[in-house]
Amino acid sequence: MAVFSEPAHCATCGSNLSNQFVVDEDRERLVCDGCGRIHYMNPSIVAGTIPVADGRVWLLRRAIEPRKGAWTFPAGYMEMGESVEEAAIRETREEIGLEVKIESLLNVYSRPTMSTVHLIYTAEALTAPVLGREALEFASFSAREIPWDGLAFWTTQMALRDWIASLKRIVETKGAVETSGGTPLGSADYSSRRSSRSSMHPSPIAKPSSRTTCCSSLSSSSVALTSRRPSSLA
Amino acid sequence: MAVFSEPAHCATCGSNLSNQFVVDEDRERLVCDGCGRIHYMNPSIVAGTIPVADGRVWLLRRAIEPRKGAWTFPAGYMEMGESVEEAAIRETREEIGLEVKIESLLNVYSRPTMSTVHLIYTAEALTAPVLGREALEFASFSAREIPWDGLAFWTTQMALRDWIASLKRIVETKGAVETSGGTPLGSADYSSRRSSRSSMHPSPIAKPSSRTTCCSSLSSSSVALTSRRPSSLA
Repeated sequence: MAVFSEPAHCATCGSNLSNQFVVDEDRERLVCDGCGRIHYMNPSIVAGTIPVADGRVWLLRRAIEPRKGAWTFPAGYMEMGESVEEAAIRETREEIGLEVKIESLLNVYSRPTMSTVHLIYTAEALTAPVLGREALEFASFSAREIPWDGLAFWTTQMALRDWIASLKRIVETKGAVETSGGTPLGSADYSSRRSSRSSMHPSPIAKPSSRTTCCSSLSSSSVALTSRRPSSLA
Repeated sequence: MAVFSEPAHCATCGSNLSNQFVVDEDRERLVCDGCGRIHYMNPSIVAGTIPVADGRVWLLRRAIEPRKGAWTFPAGYMEMGESVEEAAIRETREEIGLEVKIESLLNVYSRPTMSTVHLIYTAEALTAPVLGREALEFASFSAREIPWDGLAFWTTQMALRDWIASLKRIVETKGAVETSGGTPLGSADYSSRRSSRSSMHPSPIAKPSSRTTCCSSLSSSSVALTSRRPSSLA
C-alpha cells in the first residue's frame, strides 16, 4: 500500500494534473493540463542518529502518533538546503535536545512502499538530553538493555541491530589487535548498568507489509549527476 | 543559490500557497490558503552506480544538458516505490543499457544548495553496455585512465576518487594478507590497457558554488522512523 498521495493540481498554475505518457522519458508522468509542467514525485529522506555516550544509546518515547509511547532514536524528514548529516544533527536536537557529533553512516534503509529512504548515523552525544514536546521520556540503554518489545518501528529495530553489530565488530577488531588480554571493550559496551528488561536477541515486533531493503557500505568521503530535470542539475 | 522552485499552488485544491508559521513545527511552512494543507519540500535522491568489469569502470558521455558531452557514470533521480538499489540498477540500465549487480554503497554525497542527496554504489557489470539516447558514447576506463578533465560534475570526480580509494584499500588488505608476494591485485586494477590520456591525480574541474558534504559508512544490513507527516509513517 502506497501511503503518499498524488498531487491533483499543478504547483505552478493550479490547473488539473493528469497522467500522460512523456515520450522523452518513456513513461507516464503527472502533467499539467494547463501549463504542461511535468510533476516529478520522489521518495523522502529520513535522517537520524543513534546517539551514544559511554557505550549507551539515548532513546526517546514518542509523544506523537504514529506509535505514540514507543521507543525510538531521534530521526525525521530532511529539509531543503541542508546536508544529510545536518538534518540528522538537527532532528536529534529537536526531538531530544541533544547535541551530537556525527561519527559515521550506520546504514541506509529503503522503504519502497512508504517511499522513504532512511539514513542513520552513529553519533557521539556531547550533552545531556532535554525533554521537549516530541518525547514523553528518554533513557540511555546499553546494547543488552534495548527495549526490543517496545520499539516504535520495525526499522528502529533493524538500525539498533546494526548498531550492536558494529559494536561487536569493534570488539572483535580490538580483540584481534590486543591479543594480550586485559579488559575487553565489550565489558563496557555490553555492561548492564541498569536492570535490564530485554535480552540481546530482538523479539519480532510488528513487521510492516512494506518491503524494506538495506545495504552495506564501503568507503569514506563525497556526487554524481544525471539526466532529467535539467533545472535542478545546472 | 537554490535551484528548486517553490510551489505556488496547492497540490490538493489548487488554491494559493503562502508562507505561514506552523506552531506545532516551530517554523514557517508553505500552507494552502484554501484547504490549509501544509506542503513539505524535501531534497531528492539521485541513485547511481560505478559499474565495473575486470577492474575497469564503464562511463558514458552525456547526450543531454547539463554538461552534454562530458563523462559520467550512470545515475538519476529515484522514483516512488523503489529501493535505492533498484533505482541505481534501473538508471544504469536506462542510461547505458547495462545490467549490474550492486556490490556495496560507495558513499553518500549531499548537495544542500541543489537539494539533492546522491547515493552511489559500486556494481559488477554483468553485460556489455548498449548505446541509447542518453549517451553519445561509452567506454571503460581503468583507475589510471579516468578522464578527469572531461568529467561532467565535480561530484562525478569525487565518487570516482572514492572508488579508486576503495580499490587501494582492497589492494592494501590483499597485500597485508598475501605477504608471500605474487601478482598484486593492483596490477590488474591499475593496469593501463589502453593508451591513457589522464593521470591518477584528478585535476580540478569546475567546482560548483554549492556545498557538497559527504560521509563515510560503517556497517551492513535496514529504518528508523520519526515524527511529522503521520500519514506517510503509518
